[in-house]
Amino acid sequence: MKGTMSDVKLEECREHIRSQLDNVVDFWLKYSHDTVDGGFFTCLGRDGSVYDKLKYVWLQGRQVWMYCRLYRTMDRFHKPEILEAAKAGGEFLRKFARVSRASGEWKCAFCLTSDGKAVKVQRTLFSECFYIMAMDELSRVTGDKDMQLEAEQMMEQLIHWVRVDSSGLGRPQLPGDVPTNSMAVPMMLLCLVQQLTEGQGQDVVQKYKELEQWCVQQILHHVQRAGTAILENVSVEGTELPGCSGRLQNPGHALEAGWFLLQYSAERGDEKIQETAISKFMELPYQCGWDKKHGGLFYFLDVDGHCPTQLEWSMKLWWPHCEALIAFLMAYSQTKKPELLERFFEVYDYTFTHFPDAQSGEWFGYLTQEGKVALDFIGGPFKGKIIRCQLKGVRKQHMMPCCIDIQEKMRNKVIDINLSGGLQSHC
Amino acid sequence: MKGTMSDVKLEECREHIRSQLDNVVDFWLKYSHDTVDGGFFTCLGRDGSVYDKLKYVWLQGRQVWMYCRLYRTMDRFHKPEILEAAKAGGEFLRKFARVSRASGEWKCAFCLTSDGKAVKVQRTLFSECFYIMAMDELSRVTGDKDMQLEAEQMMEQLIHWVRVDSSGLGRPQLPGDVPTNSMAVPMMLLCLVQQLTEGQGQDVVQKYKELEQWCVQQILHHVQRAGTAILENVSVEGTELPGCSGRLQNPGHALEAGWFLLQYSAERGDEKIQETAISKFMELPYQCGWDKKHGGLFYFLDVDGHCPTQLEWSMKLWWPHCEALIAFLMAYSQTKKPELLERFFEVYDYTFTHFPDAQSGEWFGYLTQEGKVALDFIGGPFKGKIIRCQLKGVRKQHMMPCCIDIQEKMRNKVIDINLSGGLQSHC
Repeated sequence: MKGTMSDVKLEECREHIRSQLDNVVDFWLKYSHDTVDGGFFTCLGRDGSVYDKLKYVWLQGRQVWMYCRLYRTMDRFHKPEILEAAKAGGEFLRKFARVSRASGEWKCAFCLTSDGKAVKVQRTLFSECFYIMAMDELSRVTGDKDMQLEAEQMMEQLIHWVRVDSSGLGRPQLPGDVPTNSMAVPMMLLCLVQQLTEGQGQDVVQKYKELEQWCVQQILHHVQRAGTAILENVSVEGTELPGCSGRLQNPGHALEAGWFLLQYSAERGDEKIQETAISKFMELPYQCGWDKKHGGLFYFLDVDGHCPTQLEWSMKLWWPHCEALIAFLMAYSQTKKPELLERFFEVYDYTFTHFPDAQSGEWFGYLTQEGKVALDFIGGPFKGKIIRCQLKGVRKQHMMPCCIDIQEKMRNKVIDINLSGGLQSHC
Repeated sequence: MKGTMSDVKLEECREHIRSQLDNVVDFWLKYSHDTVDGGFFTCLGRDGSVYDKLKYVWLQGRQVWMYCRLYRTMDRFHKPEILEAAKAGGEFLRKFARVSRASGEWKCAFCLTSDGKAVKVQRTLFSECFYIMAMDELSRVTGDKDMQLEAEQMMEQLIHWVRVDSSGLGRPQLPGDVPTNSMAVPMMLLCLVQQLTEGQGQDVVQKYKELEQWCVQQILHHVQRAGTAILENVSVEGTELPGCSGRLQNPGHALEAGWFLLQYSAERGDEKIQETAISKFMELPYQCGWDKKHGGLFYFLDVDGHCPTQLEWSMKLWWPHCEALIAFLMAYSQTKKPELLERFFEVYDYTFTHFPDAQSGEWFGYLTQEGKVALDFIGGPFKGKIIRCQLKGVRKQHMMPCCIDIQEKMRNKVIDINLSGGLQSHC
């Protein structure tokens, strides 16, 4: 594709994503707010009706974070109603998400009743991650220092679980349960470090520097098979694990880790990490994960070609496609390699012809392998608001009219397309 | 269909299932035995290769139970190699399945390494159920009284968890976690009562009589919406629960519960339960659960027509079809109503044209909604050995040449087709 044609198409992408974001924000502003008990409904049908009143904590946290980001970074969303909704969501979270523990540890529920009673607690750390994201971002728009302190204290709790003692998560220690480095954990911690340090002074950056480097190393351990594959679970020593768990591939996660690494490398001018991010965490998952017959990215694969045991392995989910869009466009914006832009366009075409729902203005989350809508709701236990796609314009003289930055912070959950209008120079 | 035509078709079914059972038993005898560490591999590909060495306890228990049943009840499987395999599997289970608890409670692991180290413990009671099934059945072929006692003691543990105090299962008590009557629990306990009392004296029957009646009542509470729907989860008071969980339907489970009730009613000549079993637990799930477009039974549905949130809701799994086969043929054999035989044939035709795998002689477990093979392994974490289909011949003068009794003892796991040759009079 000639340069000019690419420019035109990128501009079209930017405009399309911009209008999609407006639709998406409208949908959630209109239908998701619980004006009685606070917080957000997340199980929403195409017509905005609430088909389940349970409040999933990941999605509560995400929605607070999203509203704040929109409010803070994009002029057209800098509106009182968005700020108020974020604050109300934050209040609900602070009041109800944390469950009391005899040990005094800070554990968050996974799911609450509409009036805030804990229904389920997971033995993982992801509810806490989204709690931190919400609190840190909300403190930035409100200036509430206590809230920021709370985010940092929760972060200390996470670090303790991951690097010192995980027993507080509630999983029994079993002799056959080999300690595992799962991609989600260092990836999520790296994301949190990037959140907590964004725009902060050197004291905060220094505080998390060692952790950030540790996260990067842990992510790099997932490059296996002499550099030919990204594996989802490896041993804590960085070696391949036996069985299905060891052979599991999650292309969406690999791509997500890829652009986290790319962000990290850009901040430092680290070309080696940049090269690894693109060649290993983007090209490899694309090569193995793209469905040559039907298009789209598989959810799970087995590196040796066995059939994964997850029933949904061949389904096409919204979030891996968003990760891929961000990853390839960010990679292109850093390297100007046209093949990366071609990848972006390929993923873009599949994504925007398959996931958007004209009726609601939002997206479907789950397609069959063949691309048919498999679950027709808009929000569910793991897919919530909001598509964030940060379209950062760059100076046109750089021949890079826009850069889409679609952030999906956690596996199998939520994407956020945050489309910022206007041209910015840092992309 | 005329009576004679039905007779011919039923005889064909019987012959076909008989040959399928032989293939299935051959497959598992040949490929699943771990001659080094004991127990059974259950993650097997179509060529019998082991793609994961993990040993899932449900399936260990099922395989021991199955071998014993085959050995004990069917002449052509009354062979030393089957008895020895069952004993070896039982030894592995007794040695490794139980995890030690400070409380002294008997909890079983869900998953073990190939050499028997616990990998995962579920906060449910199903591993224990399959442990009991295995121990009781094995004690019947070996005459080992200690083993039978162990089965009964484990049963006491289960009853305690279900009816007195569930805290030993390890789930934290949460204020929003409403106590729920899930179909699987009373259904499984009823199955265990039928296992433990089969062929036993009045003392044993009396011991479990009250429990059995309680289970039946708990199952009947799942008839909801003024008798128009079977719901998978209800309150302990027998009322509908809110949200997706309350509206969930699992047609395969309802059909399974149906034939458990039919067995119960047949033992007592209880026509009211028989009528309820057929009209509520068979006809209703068939009406709502059968895919009019593509054939086959859906895995999950929502009683109000919302899309279920389970990604695999529209898939066609082997076990609900086996439940339906048993249910309709058992119902027909008790009532002689031709429409029930028609249902059986409809399910039979779908099942035997879609699930069997000619290469392995075994069955695929998971199809897409359209009936395409979605996961191409033979055994997995939840699908293991062995198809048990008990084809009980009945006296031909009753115009009922055969009765297939396909038992699927637990949700989403294992079916067993136990095809008994020869004519028997009690069906």
